[in-house]
Amino acid sequence: MVSEKNTTVAVVMGSDSDMDVMRSCIEQLEDFGIKPTVRIISAHRTPEIAAEFAKNAAEKDIKVIIAAAGMAAHLAGALAAHTSLPIIGVPLSSSSGLNGIDALLSTVQMPPGVPVATMAIGKAGARNAAVFTVQILALSDKNLREKLMEFKKAQEKKVIDKDSGVR
Amino acid sequence: MVSEKNTTVAVVMGSDSDMDVMRSCIEQLEDFGIKPTVRIISAHRTPEIAAEFAKNAAEKDIKVIIAAAGMAAHLAGALAAHTSLPIIGVPLSSSSGLNGIDALLSTVQMPPGVPVATMAIGKAGARNAAVFTVQILALSDKNLREKLMEFKKAQEKKVIDKDSGVR
Amino acid sequence: MVSEKNTTVAVVMGSDSDMDVMRSCIEQLEDFGIKPTVRIISAHRTPEIAAEFAKNAAEKDIKVIIAAAGMAAHLAGALAAHTSLPIIGVPLSSSSGLNGIDALLSTVQMPPGVPVATMAIGKAGARNAAVFTVQILALSDKNLREKLMEFKKAQEKKVIDKDSGVR
Amino acid sequence: MVSEKNTTVAVVMGSDSDMDVMRSCIEQLEDFGIKPTVRIISAHRTPEIAAEFAKNAAEKDIKVIIAAAGMAAHLAGALAAHTSLPIIGVPLSSSSGLNGIDALLSTVQMPPGVPVATMAIGKAGARNAAVFTVQILALSDKNLREKLMEFKKAQEKKVIDKDSGVR
Amino acid sequence: MVSEKNTTVAVVMGSDSDMDVMRSCIEQLEDFGIKPTVRIISAHRTPEIAAEFAKNAAEKDIKVIIAAAGMAAHLAGALAAHTSLPIIGVPLSSSSGLNGIDALLSTVQMPPGVPVATMAIGKAGARNAAVFTVQILALSDKNLREKLMEFKKAQEKKVIDKDSGVR
Amino acid sequence: MVSEKNTTVAVVMGSDSDMDVMRSCIEQLEDFGIKPTVRIISAHRTPEIAAEFAKNAAEKDIKVIIAAAGMAAHLAGALAAHTSLPIIGVPLSSSSGLNGIDALLSTVQMPPGVPVATMAIGKAGARNAAVFTVQILALSDKNLREKLMEFKKAQEKKVIDKDSGVR
Amino acid sequence: MVSEKNTTVAVVMGSDSDMDVMRSCIEQLEDFGIKPTVRIISAHRTPEIAAEFAKNAAEKDIKVIIAAAGMAAHLAGALAAHTSLPIIGVPLSSSSGLNGIDALLSTVQMPPGVPVATMAIGKAGARNAAVFTVQILALSDKNLREKLMEFKKAQEKKVIDKDSGVR
Amino acid sequence: MVSEKNTTVAVVMGSDSDMDVMRSCIEQLEDFGIKPTVRIISAHRTPEIAAEFAKNAAEKDIKVIIAAAGMAAHLAGALAAHTSLPIIGVPLSSSSGLNGIDALLSTVQMPPGVPVATMAIGKAGARNAAVFTVQILALSDKNLREKLMEFKKAQEKKVIDKDSGVR
Repeated sequence: MVSEKNTTVAVVMGSDSDMDVMRSCIEQLEDFGIKPTVRIISAHRTPEIAAEFAKNAAEKDIKVIIAAAGMAAHLAGALAAHTSLPIIGVPLSSSSGLNGIDALLSTVQMPPGVPVATMAIGKAGARNAAVFTVQILALSDKNLREKLMEFKKAQEKKVIDKDSGVR
Repeated sequence: MVSEKNTTVAVVMGSDSDMDVMRSCIEQLEDFGIKPTVRIISAHRTPEIAAEFAKNAAEKDIKVIIAAAGMAAHLAGALAAHTSLPIIGVPLSSSSGLNGIDALLSTVQMPPGVPVATMAIGKAGARNAAVFTVQILALSDKNLREKLMEFKKAQEKKVIDKDSGVR
Repeated sequence: MVSEKNTTVAVVMGSDSDMDVMRSCIEQLEDFGIKPTVRIISAHRTPEIAAEFAKNAAEKDIKVIIAAAGMAAHLAGALAAHTSLPIIGVPLSSSSGLNGIDALLSTVQMPPGVPVATMAIGKAGARNAAVFTVQILALSDKNLREKLMEFKKAQEKKVIDKDSGVR
Repeated sequence: MVSEKNTTVAVVMGSDSDMDVMRSCIEQLEDFGIKPTVRIISAHRTPEIAAEFAKNAAEKDIKVIIAAAGMAAHLAGALAAHTSLPIIGVPLSSSSGLNGIDALLSTVQMPPGVPVATMAIGKAGARNAAVFTVQILALSDKNLREKLMEFKKAQEKKVIDKDSGVR
Repeated sequence: MVSEKNTTVAVVMGSDSDMDVMRSCIEQLEDFGIKPTVRIISAHRTPEIAAEFAKNAAEKDIKVIIAAAGMAAHLAGALAAHTSLPIIGVPLSSSSGLNGIDALLSTVQMPPGVPVATMAIGKAGARNAAVFTVQILALSDKNLREKLMEFKKAQEKKVIDKDSGVR
Repeated sequence: MVSEKNTTVAVVMGSDSDMDVMRSCIEQLEDFGIKPTVRIISAHRTPEIAAEFAKNAAEKDIKVIIAAAGMAAHLAGALAAHTSLPIIGVPLSSSSGLNGIDALLSTVQMPPGVPVATMAIGKAGARNAAVFTVQILALSDKNLREKLMEFKKAQEKKVIDKDSGVR
Repeated sequence: MVSEKNTTVAVVMGSDSDMDVMRSCIEQLEDFGIKPTVRIISAHRTPEIAAEFAKNAAEKDIKVIIAAAGMAAHLAGALAAHTSLPIIGVPLSSSSGLNGIDALLSTVQMPPGVPVATMAIGKAGARNAAVFTVQILALSDKNLREKLMEFKKAQEKKVIDKDSGVR
Repeated sequence: MVSEKNTTVAVVMGSDSDMDVMRSCIEQLEDFGIKPTVRIISAHRTPEIAAEFAKNAAEKDIKVIIAAAGMAAHLAGALAAHTSLPIIGVPLSSSSGLNGIDALLSTVQMPPGVPVATMAIGKAGARNAAVFTVQILALSDKNLREKLMEFKKAQEKKVIDKDSGVR
């Protein structure tokens, strides 16, 4: 059940072609009852929209921003430059790229003072960006804390079930 | 001025030789008035202490755990396995290692469901782990939000001053 | 001919999707008459099962544990933390990964005192984990020593036959 | 002899610690009679100054911008987002970095539509950024074209002289 | 509308198999009204043609040379050795190669004095070589400056439209 | 026309699955009139045959040995250990491998005193091993020298023809 | 106290310059009461000694061979080719090398059928080769099993003591 | 004793700063009684001298050319483009470089038809270029063949002596 009003989370991606991977992020958030604001904003093609978005995010009650990009992935860092909200970066592999190692290094190797919390490359990172966001929000939301415990148990159960299957 | 009582943050490292780098993390936290719990816990040599620590952290009012390790850096992931608190990983370069790329990949490439928010390799990452922690805590702490704004301004001013110096 | 009773070897993998690759490990063990205990255990989703499994393995007469995982592959190291039995790690390539170099470094770059004997990435490593396990067990099992000699000769013969084919 | 008035070139770096390497860029420009505007601007700490600088550069008769940064080097790309002037990127190696491969990939792997002309890592790239800038300016400056020819001859002569030395 | 006479730009590639990727470079130039001279010249198989081409380019009113090659991509550097015109290098991924990292390093890591302005690997770099060329030519061509502004706006609009689509 | 008697060259590969790539080496040799001895010999599965082959090669009038292997490619080095004939190594990409970078480093990074002349990864290297072999043999074979000149001209012509096609 | 008679373990290295690193392997073995046979054998300079050594090792009651080498590290694989004893490989970083990544890939990426159990690069790997050897021998030696338990406890205690120091 | 007249080998390097490493190549050649022609020629700064040198080498009775360069090391390939003599490439590590991996890939990844026989990075490769050259020349020089056998024996003896030292 997704609450329409909960828009404390923004999922921003550099291109609509990133939606394939980022859908798993959005769906994971929705599984926790969070309907994120989804935006396509490019650090390089719409830099002012990116800056405005980041600057105003806190006022609009956004608490966490997830930013996904490929190649020289600057999006997460560009948003981090304009806000003190936690920014979570998801490096994406791209056809012109190097299996995503370029996006990973461009996202994670941020200079001191302007952190980007970086997740794994691609789909695994997309889903984990959602989970990590929930972990942050759960610090002041008992309901989410319980959902996280259920989630952890469900994950555990899935492995145990598969384990039973092979034993 | 550091408040003795604030122990909502834990800084865990795999070895006391990591203290050289992690001191800048601790000092950055202290600059924000946060005195972290500092621990030396090894994912591989004291795995049960690691598990216990992670399992009990939430009850002890710890809100964020920063975990730093080198080589096949499992510490952050090992803690993440036992808690739903946000875990921030700092990959460290080591003498036996590969400039820290081994620690980076071991920390960031977590499987879906168990995120570790990864920072840059070494000192830059150590300081950013502190800043990112404050960004999380500031979501429900107006005082920290103001300090973050001052911090951002001070960072800006430092660059502007240096810029004036070379112009 | 596989002896049902021989359960001195455990093959543990992080996910059932790893079975595709690890089947060649299991089959190689079976070729040597060893029917392994096969388990799906996740270092991050079922960490306590992992810990329990490793702690109790020696008592259950397991002598060697083969552990396969992809991405930030912690499984082998997590087991090694809880037992002094020889642990053999098989790094797997994964769709979110970097051709397996992430899993290789996460598996092999273990800190001093907690070794993981690492094999090649993917299928080659999966088969070699089986062969290496047999080499260990053969140290106190004359029957296996003879089988290893036959295996080495069969391998040699296969190459010689192919060589004859092209000459 | 350096003409004070020629300020068609800007050399921007992310931190004053980059000056060690970038001095060779500035000196190389000065050898061609170009006194660049030198600025310290951070893509992440002074993003608005970066945006303003890039947006206004053309009006201030700047023709080429050289941008140097280390780690997740976004500076060149951040400037390129705000101007259509040619941007030349110099990736720098840093103590927290990976011999500069992180800065190289963050600088060169720009998405379609927003190019950054990337030079070699470190000092070689710093000097070449100056030479490449002169090559651009020389397209409409006969004086610089002649200087470039002399430069090429002087380079050639230096090698020939050293060659004579060893023969 | 492409002006037949404008041949100030040369697009050189090492093999006709590179045309697949470089077509997007040529088309991008044509979108700006520039019909480039297209040549297949190999640094290693037709080195004298390469040298002649580079030496005579300036006289033939060529202003910018785009050079694309894969593997140990020497083409851009080989042309740069024989001219002071700006050379733009596009590293290509090849079937015998390493996802293009070999071509990237062979193109970008030029020694001091002989720069090659390097773009991203593959199609993104091919298109950007065209854009960067236009940015150079626009320095003395008001018409191109306006086209670049339109291009930047069109890029921006495309992202904004997609953004509207997902909001 | 291939002379049946010319067996001065050996092409050795570690597995019959390498034939796909190495066929282009053999055909290139045959284009120069050299019919090589083709062998499948494994450094690890038939080490004694490898040693014997290398030790006796000179006596059997073999002058150059081309050795191709993938993964931890030891074959070329293992042959080099047993002979002073020139050994040419061709690193192959394999399904369990890392795009051939593992085979490249295993082949090229030989310790002082025991050289292996290493070619590019895969098909390009396979063909070049043949050409390089001919270059060696041509030092004392005027006929081959002429064929090499024709080959170089034919290569040149092919590029020129393609160039004409696109102009 | 080291028992002079216990020579079930061989430590082989490719060059006497490797002794600096491998001393920590030898000392670790001696801490467990095992005095290894130490040899300098080169896969490429003394290949026949290597082959003989490996072939006769089992007869001489050697049970485990530790082999350390740098660059294109073939030593472990060369020994594995001639014996079915467990071979443990230690990749070493060398001055001509690539931080040891060349040695790591040359050691670990063994083809199916001929495993080498690979440890971390350098000193960490050297010590772990000793520990892993003891883990193998302990399977049929109760005394060593107890020593391993003490070792594990001592490691744990060292971390706990350091942890107490910083708390 | 070095024969002054023997100038069948050329050692070419891109810069006089490469002499430190290449001295070991020259000395190794001299140990075999070969006094090479030593030249400093830059593929990029003196491309015509490079072309002339390569084109005329065969006429001047040069039989093998050793070419050493760092960064985007084009020298060996540039020479190979102009001659059918065997070219041996030595990739060098440089201060602006990436431990020599850039030079290695730029040297070894040559396209089909224009081989460069590549040696290890740095000093090991420098010495091996000399040995490989002698191996080529020895094909038609019985005296060198004998020297190579002595060299191989001396190498073997050195290892055996060191082995005796540690036993």
